Amino acid sequence: MSHAISDDALDTIFRTARTQNKWSDAPLSEALLMAVYDLMRWGPTSANSCPARFVFVTSDAAKARLAPHLSEGNREKTMAAPAVAIIGYDLDFPETLPKLFPNNPKMKDVFGSNPQLTETTAFRNSSLQGAYFIIAARALGLDCGPMSGFNNAGVDAEFFAGTNIKSNFICAIGHGDPAGVFPRNPRLSFDEACKIV
Amino acid sequence: MSHAISDDALDTIFRTARTQNKWSDAPLSEALLMAVYDLMRWGPTSANSCPARFVFVTSDAAKARLAPHLSEGNREKTMAAPAVAIIGYDLDFPETLPKLFPNNPKMKDVFGSNPQLTETTAFRNSSLQGAYFIIAARALGLDCGPMSGFNNAGVDAEFFAGTNIKSNFICAIGHGDPAGVFPRNPRLSFDEACKIV
Repeated sequence: MSHAISDDALDTIFRTARTQNKWSDAPLSEALLMAVYDLMRWGPTSANSCPARFVFVTSDAAKARLAPHLSEGNREKTMAAPAVAIIGYDLDFPETLPKLFPNNPKMKDVFGSNPQLTETTAFRNSSLQGAYFIIAARALGLDCGPMSGFNNAGVDAEFFAGTNIKSNFICAIGHGDPAGVFPRNPRLSFDEACKIV
Repeated sequence: MSHAISDDALDTIFRTARTQNKWSDAPLSEALLMAVYDLMRWGPTSANSCPARFVFVTSDAAKARLAPHLSEGNREKTMAAPAVAIIGYDLDFPETLPKLFPNNPKMKDVFGSNPQLTETTAFRNSSLQGAYFIIAARALGLDCGPMSGFNNAGVDAEFFAGTNIKSNFICAIGHGDPAGVFPRNPRLSFDEACKIV
């Protein structure tokens, strides 16, 4: 079987990439953060809804606002990363659909009349986009440390007040220090996770 | 800025990859379906929970079981794909944690005592894994057609009866026919979706 992309690239985005716990403190350029977004935004979402929103926490002042909401086991390592992306979802994403999905002008109302569908779509698709974000960051030479151990309501009040944006998960990004990587845990075999019918 | 993986590879997984609506009917080998899983399974999940489960619908008989649950707009194109992955999440994933996350034997009970956390973790992380699946399939030369327009309860009753597995979304995979690709919709700009603080 031929690989559409090289074995080295598969290693970079999946096979040898590892969640990081220690970081180089060299700052990341704004251009690099923008490049990650510019790449990941092409990943597919339902009705091109693109509900994910990103806050890149990079300054000491912003990190100090984030710190109290992190679980104790995540606090020190997260503060040491040059950037932490708060990946949220905007429950007002239907407002963007006339622009993002112009081929069906009624799609905004499909969601507008169904808050449960809006919530489920926003959570599912912002999670997809969070995964695209991780892969895109790795593809551009960065390391990731994704985490869900934090107080979502506290982060929402601190960073998303006055909006309908809710936090989904956070992801430290930067250049990892291999000394902080844990031994790799196993994965389920094909037969444990999959069936062909 | 140097790219850790080549521009061609970035095109393959993000920039020129497109959601497909028409398919070559050439069958996919079981080895290729397994290769997609073997690649995507390395993507990170919370506490290595790996809650996603995959049913690859490939036979005519299995497609006939799936068809009635698809939204009308998705039915014909989905039936024409050589394989359709039903991506689900197993609410019993805590049972696998002693194997998948051996460094914290208490993690199984953390979830076991908190059904809401279990549900949220399963949905969020199976969505991440669904995105890894899309990227991995593209990286191995396949095209994808992800969809959430189907009757989840009907699919669950048909394919996951007697388990605690729930469907998340489905994804046609195969080799797409460019004639079925829609014009590409826009994405939000960095300033519309992101902030640096």
